Amino acid sequence: MSGAAVVTGEIDLAASVTGTRGDANALLAEIEGIGLDPDRGGYTRPVFSPAELRLRSWFAAHAAARGLTVDTDRNGVIWAWWDVPGPSDSGAPAPVRRDVIVTGSHLDSVPGGGNFDGPLGVASALAAVDLLRDRGVRPVRPLAVAVFPEEEGSRFGIACLGSRLLAGAVAPERVHALVDDSGSTFDEVAAGAGFDASGIGPDPDRLGDISAFVELHVEQGRGLVDLDQPVALAGAIIAHGRWHLRIEGRGDHAGATRMADRSDPVVVASEAIRSVRQRALAVDDARGTVGRIKVVPGGTNVIASAVDLWIDVRHRSEEQVHLIVEQVVADARRAAEAEDCTLAVTEQSFSPTVSFDPELRDRMQAVLPGAPVLDTGAGHDAGVLASSISTGMLFVRNPSGASHTPAESAEPADVAAGVDALADVLEHLLTR
Amino acid sequence: MSGAAVVTGEIDLAASVTGTRGDANALLAEIEGIGLDPDRGGYTRPVFSPAELRLRSWFAAHAAARGLTVDTDRNGVIWAWWDVPGPSDSGAPAPVRRDVIVTGSHLDSVPGGGNFDGPLGVASALAAVDLLRDRGVRPVRPLAVAVFPEEEGSRFGIACLGSRLLAGAVAPERVHALVDDSGSTFDEVAAGAGFDASGIGPDPDRLGDISAFVELHVEQGRGLVDLDQPVALAGAIIAHGRWHLRIEGRGDHAGATRMADRSDPVVVASEAIRSVRQRALAVDDARGTVGRIKVVPGGTNVIASAVDLWIDVRHRSEEQVHLIVEQVVADARRAAEAEDCTLAVTEQSFSPTVSFDPELRDRMQAVLPGAPVLDTGAGHDAGVLASSISTGMLFVRNPSGASHTPAESAEPADVAAGVDALADVLEHLLTR
Repeated sequence: MSGAAVVTGEIDLAASVTGTRGDANALLAEIEGIGLDPDRGGYTRPVFSPAELRLRSWFAAHAAARGLTVDTDRNGVIWAWWDVPGPSDSGAPAPVRRDVIVTGSHLDSVPGGGNFDGPLGVASALAAVDLLRDRGVRPVRPLAVAVFPEEEGSRFGIACLGSRLLAGAVAPERVHALVDDSGSTFDEVAAGAGFDASGIGPDPDRLGDISAFVELHVEQGRGLVDLDQPVALAGAIIAHGRWHLRIEGRGDHAGATRMADRSDPVVVASEAIRSVRQRALAVDDARGTVGRIKVVPGGTNVIASAVDLWIDVRHRSEEQVHLIVEQVVADARRAAEAEDCTLAVTEQSFSPTVSFDPELRDRMQAVLPGAPVLDTGAGHDAGVLASSISTGMLFVRNPSGASHTPAESAEPADVAAGVDALADVLEHLLTR
Repeated sequence: MSGAAVVTGEIDLAASVTGTRGDANALLAEIEGIGLDPDRGGYTRPVFSPAELRLRSWFAAHAAARGLTVDTDRNGVIWAWWDVPGPSDSGAPAPVRRDVIVTGSHLDSVPGGGNFDGPLGVASALAAVDLLRDRGVRPVRPLAVAVFPEEEGSRFGIACLGSRLLAGAVAPERVHALVDDSGSTFDEVAAGAGFDASGIGPDPDRLGDISAFVELHVEQGRGLVDLDQPVALAGAIIAHGRWHLRIEGRGDHAGATRMADRSDPVVVASEAIRSVRQRALAVDDARGTVGRIKVVPGGTNVIASAVDLWIDVRHRSEEQVHLIVEQVVADARRAAEAEDCTLAVTEQSFSPTVSFDPELRDRMQAVLPGAPVLDTGAGHDAGVLASSISTGMLFVRNPSGASHTPAESAEPADVAAGVDALADVLEHLLTR
């Protein structure tokens, strides 16, 4: 993908850099008006939407104003570089980008999400760069701030799409074929946003030059609230995946069709939803959710002809995730047969349990000795990249514990504590 | 509403009148390309959409080309008049529009509907006018062909909205406040289509001038298939209504939120869907349907904050309809309480059982002695108007029995038989 559309935004934030210097709260306040969703509340910033593109421009402008070199790779990931002089310090034409330390997160959101899930990690990265410079830190290796596209998977169905492409965890051919709700392909949507998607795919050279990636994120749960702490280190990301169920029946008139003559996929969908709840409840600490349903054609006085339904299942044990999904699919298949409907199931994505690099976590704990270690049920780009490179995460306290909703939040003092913690970790990684 | 936008379509169909003269099949073929829905299949022609407006223009042009005088009343109903000379035959400046016989139907569709539900009655009315003229019929009272807006209620939620306004069966203030899925009010949508909705409301003078309304419609069921007959008379329309359930819970992250901490409105919705099926099944010949669901915000990895769900219930007994709805609401309320969700229920519309005028049916049976009498579970404008004026209906055989789906159909020979039957009935009513 070409980075042109990303970095040529009309936003000139040079004047605001002084005001936001070292202050992630001030940076987040700047984007509070972008991508508001009056229907759902909160923010709807799907990848390559005008809102997400504005956030990308905002980030690129802030990075450039801080003297970072901005480029976008062929997977749509933005990289903002704090380069170090080459080994000979002899005016080498290109900076040496090996042994790179990376931080950052994403700017896309779920439908009706908050302003912290993603942007907090990006804003904190910019603020941490300011703090490191204020401290007079002289890195011995490069730092990059990265912004990943489609972390939420809310437009094309595959979460962490940018990092998956980068790491070779999803085939480019599959991504070319993805369509959004309006029926547009990934490539068409990318092209509409000014990106050429023809070059997407694994980038082992780029990953090979990275020695560590640390992602800061708002906590999605109440672990830190319960512990009365502002910042934690990530332990593990529990295994998770999403499955698409397509249930097809026979559309007909809601008034004229006898109950006995129906093949109603909505009834089958209701049984699938029940099953997800019951099967997840039956397994200690499992999570099972149906949050997205599409009824076709969707008229009040019309028996539906089809239902699309998406299932999200998570558990620390990968086997348990698959077992729950198998049970749900079996329940749904029984209900479909009873209703004379058909059922097709597609695994859209699956992420095994991720344990972040223990050596990196030991180093982070040495820098932040008081920070607890928390597992999480939420997926992250750092989790996807953990299979390729050394990764770790920082979590910032979220008073409501809620996420993927406008109720998600972080206190300004905790945001500042998160930036301090991130700067401490980066200083250690950049100078030792 | 002003009729300007309706009758000033750019379609000049004068040349096609010869080809479609007396031929409802040829008329329907002309509109086969209008309002196709590539996603759902079939046709999506909501009221005041470009597709429905094109159909209105098509009708007005065909009516005008047949010498009918076309106007649109302040409720958006199009009337095409075959006037008779005044009583003195003395060149009275305005025709006398009393003791009027009306036929017609609607042109809007459900999402993903067929080309017959509505348009068949309109096309048959035009074709019947041709047949009457070919027969040399000289009416002693006027005929009007009427086209009613929003019969399906698929845009603003209230079925038969045009006839309800005309008959005073819905308050204008309520209609002004209706919104479609995009949040636009009825008045805004009407204005966008060139209509002034400020004058909507009951029109007793117009109704008082009508002596009979006969609507021809494709059958929505397999009654005529079972009887091996092409055309039937309507007996009764069973009582029916639609209710909106708004279930609100607490949006959160699908991975990070423990099952025990959830207030998930999708789970409550699944119980409501189950209840609709079970409660309707428990009552002989009742119908209960959920065909429309909206999950807010609607992300795969997001526990929903709210669900909108619409329920359609029908039975010959009005009391049974209300009883089923009460049971469903009680079941949904129990499920909502168990999930710590709230539930709000709104009755969007309710139509009592309609028995069409027995005297008119006797006259129609005298003209069509072989035609059986069939009840229907589908609502119609003729059913709404039955409380104000004498109404009757003709049904044309539908091989699939299906309706509100592209599978709805009618054989050309049966369409022709329907036009003949309608012409026979109208000839009788216009000349005796």
